[in-house]
Amino acid sequence: MSSGTRHPDPTRRSERSRQAVLRAARELIAEVGYAKLSIEGIAARAGVGKQTIYRWWRSKGAVVLDAILALSQGADGIALPDTGDIEADLKAVMRATVAEFADPAFEAPIRALNMEIAIDPELAAQYREKLAGPVDEAKKERLRAAQRAGQLAADADLDLALELLYAPVYQRWLLRTAPLTPEYADALVDHLLKALRP
Amino acid sequence: MSSGTRHPDPTRRSERSRQAVLRAARELIAEVGYAKLSIEGIAARAGVGKQTIYRWWRSKGAVVLDAILALSQGADGIALPDTGDIEADLKAVMRATVAEFADPAFEAPIRALNMEIAIDPELAAQYREKLAGPVDEAKKERLRAAQRAGQLAADADLDLALELLYAPVYQRWLLRTAPLTPEYADALVDHLLKALRP
Repeated sequence: MSSGTRHPDPTRRSERSRQAVLRAARELIAEVGYAKLSIEGIAARAGVGKQTIYRWWRSKGAVVLDAILALSQGADGIALPDTGDIEADLKAVMRATVAEFADPAFEAPIRALNMEIAIDPELAAQYREKLAGPVDEAKKERLRAAQRAGQLAADADLDLALELLYAPVYQRWLLRTAPLTPEYADALVDHLLKALRP
Repeated sequence: MSSGTRHPDPTRRSERSRQAVLRAARELIAEVGYAKLSIEGIAARAGVGKQTIYRWWRSKGAVVLDAILALSQGADGIALPDTGDIEADLKAVMRATVAEFADPAFEAPIRALNMEIAIDPELAAQYREKLAGPVDEAKKERLRAAQRAGQLAADADLDLALELLYAPVYQRWLLRTAPLTPEYADALVDHLLKALRP
């Protein structure tokens, strides 16, 4: 079927339904919370049948993952700032990260997704493949540049380095053990750089 | 009423019911998982009424917290090993921690409890007060001894130090991002000691 006929384009209609489902999921998380979010509710809000949703997604967690991915426009083209000063660049990134986790609009769907990931290993694998993996690779690319510049030890374990930076933020946020402040972001960078000094 | 009469002692009967509820909660988590655990199910297994449970606990999360506390016999008398060698002592503790999180019998109820804590700030506060707080204090006491011995910087931030040690283990475990090995435990200690060197 060529475009320009009177018949609707099924691909385009599918994509419209898909976007309606993702938008409905985001709206309902904000309105009723993740616990009360249901496939039925998403279908009703999006104006599609339940079976349409189950054709594309295996669980509400999978819908929420894609809803969040659509917001962040995927992980393509991610790059960390590189002014040549690893300390300044990491502090800028970590201050932004901490601010993001302190923002209720951002944190509610991410908290919901983390709960699902913790109990659903298959969703966890999708999350790593689609989002966490590419983002971590971009971060490590910035750390590698710092290694080449002699600012970090050449044999530093970069996966562990990312954990030392981000896991404390993640734990404070998830368990609400202490406030997430710009000073805390800076302190994490200072400790990392001391631990990874050449 | 003096003891030794024919009348049953209501305090002792209460304590028996409480212990039966906590045991039932632990058994059912292992058998059916946390998601399918219900107050009704716990009551039936423990041979008590639902109202008996609600008299003492406000949610199934609160029952599970006490069930875990009963297992660990509270946080009284916790102390970290102190051979005078902070590196050896921390590595022994972190290797044991990593092994514990890799044990399915231990990790299932703790994972369930963490899910509840992440969505229930009041339960999170109870958890900190009853378990995490006293345990963290014992860990910091060991770090303070290392500061007095000149092995750690006198001005080190000990709350941050605990996060650098434990948050990466917590994140790897909760999100299943990478294996928890003895080598990983050692690497975390090595990085912490380098970051906090006097």
